[in-house]
Amino acid sequence: MIDVALSLNELRALCLEVLLGNGFEAQQAEPIADVIVRAEADACRSHGLYRLPGYVASVSSGRANGRAVPKITQPTSAIIRVDADKGFGPAASESARPALIAAARRHGIAAMAMGNGHHFHALWADIEPLTQAGLACWAFVIGQLSVAPHGGTRKLMGTNPVSFGWPRRDAPAFIFDFATSMAARGEVELKRLAGEALPAGWGIDPAGLPTTDPAMALAGAMLPFGGHKGSALSMMVELIAGPLIGEMTSHSVANKVAIADSGPPPGGQLVIALDPAAFAPQAVGEAEAETFFANARAQPGLRLASDRRHAAREEAHRHGVNISRDLMDRVRRLLP
Amino acid sequence: MIDVALSLNELRALCLEVLLGNGFEAQQAEPIADVIVRAEADACRSHGLYRLPGYVASVSSGRANGRAVPKITQPTSAIIRVDADKGFGPAASESARPALIAAARRHGIAAMAMGNGHHFHALWADIEPLTQAGLACWAFVIGQLSVAPHGGTRKLMGTNPVSFGWPRRDAPAFIFDFATSMAARGEVELKRLAGEALPAGWGIDPAGLPTTDPAMALAGAMLPFGGHKGSALSMMVELIAGPLIGEMTSHSVANKVAIADSGPPPGGQLVIALDPAAFAPQAVGEAEAETFFANARAQPGLRLASDRRHAAREEAHRHGVNISRDLMDRVRRLLP
Repeated sequence: MIDVALSLNELRALCLEVLLGNGFEAQQAEPIADVIVRAEADACRSHGLYRLPGYVASVSSGRANGRAVPKITQPTSAIIRVDADKGFGPAASESARPALIAAARRHGIAAMAMGNGHHFHALWADIEPLTQAGLACWAFVIGQLSVAPHGGTRKLMGTNPVSFGWPRRDAPAFIFDFATSMAARGEVELKRLAGEALPAGWGIDPAGLPTTDPAMALAGAMLPFGGHKGSALSMMVELIAGPLIGEMTSHSVANKVAIADSGPPPGGQLVIALDPAAFAPQAVGEAEAETFFANARAQPGLRLASDRRHAAREEAHRHGVNISRDLMDRVRRLLP
Repeated sequence: MIDVALSLNELRALCLEVLLGNGFEAQQAEPIADVIVRAEADACRSHGLYRLPGYVASVSSGRANGRAVPKITQPTSAIIRVDADKGFGPAASESARPALIAAARRHGIAAMAMGNGHHFHALWADIEPLTQAGLACWAFVIGQLSVAPHGGTRKLMGTNPVSFGWPRRDAPAFIFDFATSMAARGEVELKRLAGEALPAGWGIDPAGLPTTDPAMALAGAMLPFGGHKGSALSMMVELIAGPLIGEMTSHSVANKVAIADSGPPPGGQLVIALDPAAFAPQAVGEAEAETFFANARAQPGLRLASDRRHAAREEAHRHGVNISRDLMDRVRRLLP
């Protein structure tokens, strides 16, 4: 089957048409279309158009609010709270961003806590605009319950991604964004469909024993990356994107929220922004950071986090993107 | 050879006698003695009495200042800067702690940046007192240049530990503290002395090729834990505990600072503290976090970060600690 070629503008228009025709208002639909287009442009397929049916499903089922208007409060001048009004991360993130940037510049450090919403997009999409404002930043969000702790026997955590960004004046920001699980749930699912075995260390079966059978790992649990260290990071994400900000852990969500559609579970997000200019003379820090990156670039073949995304982006802005026929068909069936 | 049994008080007195007899004044010596005793009590041998000769050597050589008086400034009301006056982390940390706790309670989030000093102790020792004040917190510090990035061919980063703490009302805090390298440099050194091979993935030789020969890995580089993810975390630590706070990366330190003694290189530290009470109703967050820990405890055999340290601590407070005869001899030779 031949892929369908779309310009980024065509892709954005398609997303908007689907969302606006399925119970979304512009304040939710436009930021969602933007993050989907950005993900496709950066070749992050797993957070691109592939996610559109899930957004639609969660609104169609009545779980999520396509007309949500995020509400911002500041319990202190350094903390921005966003009540997402049962809507989605992109609108919540956009609406809180100016206050977060202002607070980080004023205090040198500030935090944004999003609650009562659904985060279904790539974390780097929230990080990048903050780096463009000259800030270093983290974002943390809880994924769907699917991961057992290192040394454990059953699910306790989500895939719990962590993203960090460092601003650079004359180059794209240094940004990483990775799941704290060994692999994404989708990768395990693909191995199952292909009849392939999992690499050792990806999963355990329902009895808590190591398995390379994708079906058994899906019934049991996935494992964190990096043994006890990745496991500790994943627990950290549960605590700071859950209880810290008054939200549920992935285990509580799975126990308490019935989800009968293919959309995202409810979940919180924590973003922390730092203004380097408040910590030290900016020229000193910038020169030292650029020396670090120059030393990294001097190692032949070394790829920095986000290099691949930027190469894909350049290509996409010139030539558009290719969407699989199968995905296009599924998306077009959602058109009103 | 039989170990030497010491009570924690005897151990502290020994550390103090050595430090005060070798150019340290009390404001530096006492906090150092405290972190060494705490490390031994928690069975963190690598940060215990074993480090005392290094502290002494760096002052004897004139590189570090045993009489340092840390200076605190606040560029904003949420950022505490500590100029360690070429002294050591323990005194700098202690002197900045009250201001950091006050700033975190006032703003909900605050940071401490230590510079112009030497951090040679365990990060969890800085985290624990903050959790006892009810704060969630991170600490980051840059280790000695020794680690190649994932996909790289030579040293670019230090062992760069990351520590996180979560406060608990009726239980010891959840605290982890791990190097972002696959192993500590000392572990590779021990394998070399024992004539043992390294596990695959620990190191590369000077040509950048994988090696299991400890001597070749020491001449080449160690590797980060968890592939490209641990590598990204290690780079993050270089940026936030270096350039962000006006300090050098480990690569710059190795290039610019001549170190002819066995003491610590100069290096910065970043600590971030969050007050959960500022983010959400505290009872809600506490209940949700404790449900998470109860679910973790329900998995048979699962050990939480710091469980092992707390078990050792209870034992040490009752029965003291055992120090190897060899280490005791080396320490006693430093007595005036």
